[in-house]
Amino acid sequence: MCKAINDCVIVEIPKIEDHRGNLAIIEKEVIPFQVQRVYYLYDIPSGSSRGGHAHKELRQFLIALSGSFDVILKDGEVERRITLNNPSKGLLITPGNWRELENFSSGAVCLVLASNVYCEEDYIRDFEVFKSFKKLKNI
Amino acid sequence: MCKAINDCVIVEIPKIEDHRGNLAIIEKEVIPFQVQRVYYLYDIPSGSSRGGHAHKELRQFLIALSGSFDVILKDGEVERRITLNNPSKGLLITPGNWRELENFSSGAVCLVLASNVYCEEDYIRDFEVFKSFKKLKNI
Repeated sequence: MCKAINDCVIVEIPKIEDHRGNLAIIEKEVIPFQVQRVYYLYDIPSGSSRGGHAHKELRQFLIALSGSFDVILKDGEVERRITLNNPSKGLLITPGNWRELENFSSGAVCLVLASNVYCEEDYIRDFEVFKSFKKLKNI
Repeated sequence: MCKAINDCVIVEIPKIEDHRGNLAIIEKEVIPFQVQRVYYLYDIPSGSSRGGHAHKELRQFLIALSGSFDVILKDGEVERRITLNNPSKGLLITPGNWRELENFSSGAVCLVLASNVYCEEDYIRDFEVFKSFKKLKNI
């Protein structure tokens, strides 16, 4: 049990530091999937919350490109809170993890790279349904 | 002549506006290539410059995820200056265009989605070589 939540790890993103600014690069094996969808949250009122869902198959990689926010991961038993506030560190979220985003700083930008295009059938939006899914799949 | 520079266009990125913040999404046909590389510039001193190169084959899509900066496109004859300052509008840069980035605002973040992984052979880093390449290819 509780396997999936431990698969969510912080990944160090290769970067080139320069006096003109820093450059971080995600390609090849930095993340374990081909990017099919790129999306980002911006103009977020400070202190607001988002998320509250899980995915059956989708893998995602979250980065705070500006500012900071917290990711809360839940599997029905265990809960983890991870603060993202560094553009050179991203959080890999594997399937079967409930996630919520909160505590956005002013000016925060959350970049998400996803392993597939949008698919409503892949979402679990109810926490009780999510817990049943976890039991069924034993993840 | 001067075809390639006119292929560089501003693309409106689909977005979902919400009181909790805005969400912009790039997938499927929003840009005309599969994303093989994601990179971003951050912690850029305001007023600094970057760029000064062209690509033979690579296609790129640039977005100001935070703050603003100017993209200067050159083909040896024509020059265009485009200010990016809106996370829901990106600039598609086609091959055979010299580009420079300058006038970064404080806190600017430049996200780049690229059609291929890093390949040094695809870069043209000398403007005279670039002009010869343009004449040879008639683009």
